[in-house]
Formats: sequence, structure tokens, C-alpha cells
Amino acid sequence: MASNIRINGPRLFSTLMDLGSIGATPEGGCRRMALTDEDRLGRNWLAARMRDLKLDVRVDAVGNIVGILKGQEEGPAVIVGSHIDTVGTGGRYDGALGVIAGLELMATLRDLGLTPKRDLALIAFTNEEGARFHPDMLGSVVWAGAKSPEQVYAERDAEGFVLGEELEKIGYKGAEKPGFLKARAYFELHIEQGPVLEQEGFGIGAVTGVQAITWLEFTFTGQPNHGGTTPMKYRKDAGLAAARVNLFAHEVTQRIEGQLANMGVIRVEPGNVNVVPETVICTLDLRNPVDALLDKAEAEIRAYAQDIAEKAGVGLAIRDLARFPSQPFDERLIARVEQAAKAHGHSVRRIVSGAGHDAQMMATLCPTAMIFVPSIGGLSHNPKEFSTEADIIAGANVLAEIAWEEANA
Amino acid sequence: MASNIRINGPRLFSTLMDLGSIGATPEGGCRRMALTDEDRLGRNWLAARMRDLKLDVRVDAVGNIVGILKGQEEGPAVIVGSHIDTVGTGGRYDGALGVIAGLELMATLRDLGLTPKRDLALIAFTNEEGARFHPDMLGSVVWAGAKSPEQVYAERDAEGFVLGEELEKIGYKGAEKPGFLKARAYFELHIEQGPVLEQEGFGIGAVTGVQAITWLEFTFTGQPNHGGTTPMKYRKDAGLAAARVNLFAHEVTQRIEGQLANMGVIRVEPGNVNVVPETVICTLDLRNPVDALLDKAEAEIRAYAQDIAEKAGVGLAIRDLARFPSQPFDERLIARVEQAAKAHGHSVRRIVSGAGHDAQMMATLCPTAMIFVPSIGGLSHNPKEFSTEADIIAGANVLAEIAWEEANA
Repeated sequence: MASNIRINGPRLFSTLMDLGSIGATPEGGCRRMALTDEDRLGRNWLAARMRDLKLDVRVDAVGNIVGILKGQEEGPAVIVGSHIDTVGTGGRYDGALGVIAGLELMATLRDLGLTPKRDLALIAFTNEEGARFHPDMLGSVVWAGAKSPEQVYAERDAEGFVLGEELEKIGYKGAEKPGFLKARAYFELHIEQGPVLEQEGFGIGAVTGVQAITWLEFTFTGQPNHGGTTPMKYRKDAGLAAARVNLFAHEVTQRIEGQLANMGVIRVEPGNVNVVPETVICTLDLRNPVDALLDKAEAEIRAYAQDIAEKAGVGLAIRDLARFPSQPFDERLIARVEQAAKAHGHSVRRIVSGAGHDAQMMATLCPTAMIFVPSIGGLSHNPKEFSTEADIIAGANVLAEIAWEEANA
Repeated sequence: MASNIRINGPRLFSTLMDLGSIGATPEGGCRRMALTDEDRLGRNWLAARMRDLKLDVRVDAVGNIVGILKGQEEGPAVIVGSHIDTVGTGGRYDGALGVIAGLELMATLRDLGLTPKRDLALIAFTNEEGARFHPDMLGSVVWAGAKSPEQVYAERDAEGFVLGEELEKIGYKGAEKPGFLKARAYFELHIEQGPVLEQEGFGIGAVTGVQAITWLEFTFTGQPNHGGTTPMKYRKDAGLAAARVNLFAHEVTQRIEGQLANMGVIRVEPGNVNVVPETVICTLDLRNPVDALLDKAEAEIRAYAQDIAEKAGVGLAIRDLARFPSQPFDERLIARVEQAAKAHGHSVRRIVSGAGHDAQMMATLCPTAMIFVPSIGGLSHNPKEFSTEADIIAGANVLAEIAWEEANA
């Protein structure tokens, strides 16, 4: 299928760098955490750009910013979007790319004097990263109706600041009801945040869906005996139990297809060289594209941890921190991403998203697809996160083509 | 041999509890870490008690506090001592018992109007625990000439505070040269800090020596990749490497006779649920009564860690935190502890000390012995550490008898 729309690549890139300058860090990254002053400045900048393009700008009750380009007919809109909040040690691409590519699509249509048949909208969702408030993907979770605004208003950040108050403080507790704009399709362009496309030499990823995620927190409780005077057989070592669970979880990833496991947090009390660890709090981030396989991995790890704790004379409590089922995207739209990428001369492969995205919440409302571009070195949530200008422009052109087509279908 | 000296048991116990009230914690333990304000208050209290007993109180360049009861003749002194610093989660007995028993010996001699033939001295050594500054046994290490004051002044605690400055700040950088008082013998009463005496039903331990100790610090350096988007094969997980070393060290304890191992410190950066651990700093406390076996265990663990790090693509630096060879005590004095214990009607067994003690440094200078009393439940470095009043008084009477005898030999 021939492509009709070509975005302005240099303008896209320069607009992306403009947004990246808000909250820029000395390491070349970006810190624009949700509902902070930097986020407010980023939002003001974005809303101003939307108004420059004569979009109808609306803000909903959880701060999602919606810019609508009215179509020729009434009815559900084609929506593109992502988020502009970052983690504490973020880069300039994660989230921002999808929003700026949507903005560039709007600018291109204005340049060409084109009005789509259907409404075309751009959304920047609130607090996607979950780095400041729980849950992550908060804006799209509320947009999709999985939580109410009132439920999330009560959320507190690590310092005790309340989400509802922070939203008001920055002036983004809007009048619209989340989900007010009905969607016929949703598209999101994003960096891969992993090494696969680069390692395998692909320019575009046609994302088939988001894998299932479970976050578990283990608290092992042993006995803080002296490391020099207590015979090994009398020890109740919480750290050794945690180490065994870490190794077992990795062993499970070798056996269960597609299974990922990461013990990212390990906190030891009292934490002295010569004291047997009394309390260890550690976490496992478990993911699998197939829900049943994730359930199997999780069940095996829970059973192993209980068994190990019992044998070691160590107490164990397991807490659920987060849980999202897998979310497949729309097969027709995934195929359209592949076709469009090929038509533009790019190599493309299907890929499962390892990370969560607003698209997985939108997929519960309407046919959805995502487009990935390579992350150099697979770096993510890192000031050194980087994607090439050529890959970014390629991805934005694929987004523009399929969004424009769907808006005229 | 008949015993001439009986200390005042109730006074000993009440004085021990007085010291324990300085830095007392809500759990019933004590937190009086070296060169903190609590340590300063404990030192001031101790020096005042020494002066009450008309001892000649001196402080050396690393803060060791020496109280001398002048004998009838010139010449080397009989020294008793221990330490009054605690770990962060310490109890009221570890260290304090040996110092307070020495103080009670002095008080008993004053009560009886007795002056020994030789000088009799009590020393409270600085920073024995090593919980704040390295190395542990710092005060006796310098006293024995194994390090110079200047070497240890430069030591920093975890927050960057410098030992030399902290010593001045609390007013205990004294004028005396460490080791200024020549010793003819050294005795130290201490809690066992392990379960053996209680488990086997002995009242007194005649300590034959201290086992060899090596403390290693491992820094594993991986890559902080995204825990959801990075395939397992591309991860460089510093936490997993540390867990493997922990398990291997425990496996070594099952193979090498008398070998102990403890990974007491595990610190993970960045420490986020969904970020692969980039940096893990962890420690191993390795002990064995036989130097050659400890060397073998250490060599195996170092080789394994290097191998594991290489296979995991993770950087590794290993740092020596502490290293003490095994230190046998004086055979004649060990036998005297046994005889005195029996003469007082107590059951006694020979025992190797699992923990390091100031006595092992003193043993490089003069004939040395230690007396252990049972630790109930084997608890140590724990607010619940406990020894019975009867056992404590028994141990203090054995100490008093042999010290008094040696001071009159």
C-alpha cells in the first residue's frame, strides 16, 4: 500500500529535543517526574504547541491532556499518544517520542491542509512511569475505567504528597471525564527499551502485545546470630534463603519459555559483616507473554520459597506489589504496522513489549497497535537512553501513515 | 589452689546495668557505637568510676582508656580488659562485662585494702567491634603495634566521618603512646556469643585461642537494564553473581572442617524492582580455627567469584577488610582458668573463640587467657543477648582470682 503522508523529520527531531530541554539533566537525560514543576512546564509547553496547531485542547480529571483535530464526520476518534513524565533518571525518548510524533502528525496535516474523515486526537497520559505515584500507567488506567479518579486522588508519593493535591497545584485537574473521547483505534510509537531490534538489525518493531507482569515482595525473617561464634547448623540466615530464591527464579527462566525474572531490590538488616542476616526484603519482577506460563513460574517460585524458608527455619511473608495480565494488540493493526514499515523500506519484526505501556490500557477499549524503534545498547530509564534520528523519523512516518489511514477508513 | 579474692556479685551486676543504661535501646539492648556521643558518655562514666577507685587514668592516642592500680614494685603490669563499644544492635554484655569485671576487681581490692606486688591495670580498648570503623579490635591492634595511630586516624565510617576527627570530637585523642604500659599477662572475661557452653551444660569456658578470620568485600558491577525488556541472555546481573557466591561459600562450609561463612552485607544499586542490579557490594566473614584451612576456603571462594563474574559479564573487585591469623593463648594460663573454675565449683571446658577479641592482639605481647561465660540461646550482637547473673559472677570471680595471683607472682 502506498504511503500518502510524510512527516517533517528535522522538525520532529528538533521538537523532541525542545521538550527534552524541560527537566534536562547534566548527564544528557531528563527528569520530569509526574506532577512536579518540570512536568507542569512540559505540559504547558505541549498544550501551547497543540493550540498553535489549532487543536481543541481538553484536560480530564486526572490530568490527561487531549488535543483534538476535528474530522469531517462525527463519531469515535483515532487516537495517538503516550506520556511525557519520566523516571528520576530518565532520558529524552521514553514516552516523549510518542507524544511528539503525534504532534508532528498534526503539524504535517496542517501543512498539507488535510482534514481527516474522523476526529484525530493526541493524548499525553498522566504518570505512566509510576516512578512517583502508584500505579504506573495511572492516566490510561483511569481513562480505561479500571480505576476512578477518586481512587487515584488519594495516592501518595514517597514523601507523602497526595496526587489529587499535586494535580491541582500544577493546574491540571481538568473538567473532562476520563474516557470522554470515544476511540475507534489507538496507536503508540515508543522506543523499545530493550536490545532486541538493534541486536537483530531491525528498524521497526510491530508490537504484538504487552506481556503479563507480576511483582512480588518477599520478607524473610531469620535470626541475627554472630557470624563467628554460631555453628553453621544453628544459623537461620535470611540472606541465604533470598539468594536461593534468586537462583531458583533464574533457573525457572531457563525452563519456562519466555519467562523473565529480576531480583532488583535486596535489603538486608542489620547489614553487618559479622551478623547473620535477620531480615531480608527482596522483590521479584516476573514477566511472560503467556499468562498461564507466568502463573506457572510464579507458583513454582512461591512454593520453592516457602519450602526453602521452612528448611532454613526462616519466616516468610510474600506480598503482591503489582499484577497485570498480558494484553494482546489488534491483529489487523499489527499487520498494518508491518506492511507500512515494509512499504517505507524498513526491516520489521514482530516483538512482544517487555514493559507496560498506556497502549495496554487503551487496548481494553479499542483496536490498538504499537510501533517500536530501536534503543541503542538496549538502555532504558537511563540518561544515556538513545535512538537514532533516522529510526525515530522512520517510526514516526509509520505511525503517521496508519493513523491517517484509519482516520479516513 | 584455694581462692583468696571474692568480688561483690550484686555490685558487679548493678554496675554492668549502669553502663548498659548509656545507649540503652527500647528492645532492652544497647547501641554505643565507637566514637559516637553514646560512646563518649560511656567513656566519661567509666573514667569517673576509675577515678572514684583512685586509679591512675590515662588515655592513649587512639582513645584506649587505661586505669592503673599501682603495685608495690616497678615492672610490667598484669592487665585485664575488654571494650565498651557495641554494634548497632548490641546488648549489655558483649565487651562491657570484661571491663566491669575488671572495675569490680579494683573495687574489691580497695574494699579489702589490698595492694598487689605488680601494677594491675584495666584497659577499655577503642572500636573493638569494627561496626563503625575498620579494622575491628582497632584499639588493641594499635596497642600491640600492628598499626600506627596515623594509619587508623584516616579510617572513615560509612557516612564519611574520619576516625581521627571523631576521636578529637569526643575528647579521647589522648597523650599516651599506645602500648606505653608493659604487660606481664593479660586476662579477658567475655560472653561466649555462641550456643556451645549452654548447649553442653558448662558454666565456664577456658578459651584456648581465637580462630583465624578473613573479611572480604566484593563489588560486582553489572548493567542496570530494564527488567522487563532485556532478554535474560543479555543481562549482566550483579545481584545474581553475589547470590551465587553466597551459596558457594555455604557449600564450602560443608566440605572444609571447622569452616564458617557469613554474607552479612548486601547492598544493591539502583535497587528498583524493574531494574537489573548494576552494583552489588557484599561481604563475606570467613573463619576457621586452622589457618591453612581458612586459606584454602578463601582461595576457593575467590576463584569461584572471579569465574562467576567472568561468565556473567560482570566486573568484580575484591577488597580485604580484615585478616587475622589464628591466635593460641598461653597454655599455663589456660590451665589456670580451668583449675580456678573447678576450685570455685564450676563445670569448665576448653573452647575455641569464634569471635575476634582484644585478647588476641594482647597475646602477641604477653601470656594471655580468656574466660567465657554462657550466652543464653547463643544470641550475640542482639538486644536479647543475655547471660545469667550467676554465670557472670562466677566468671568474674575466676578472672579476679587469676589476675590477683599473677599480680602477686
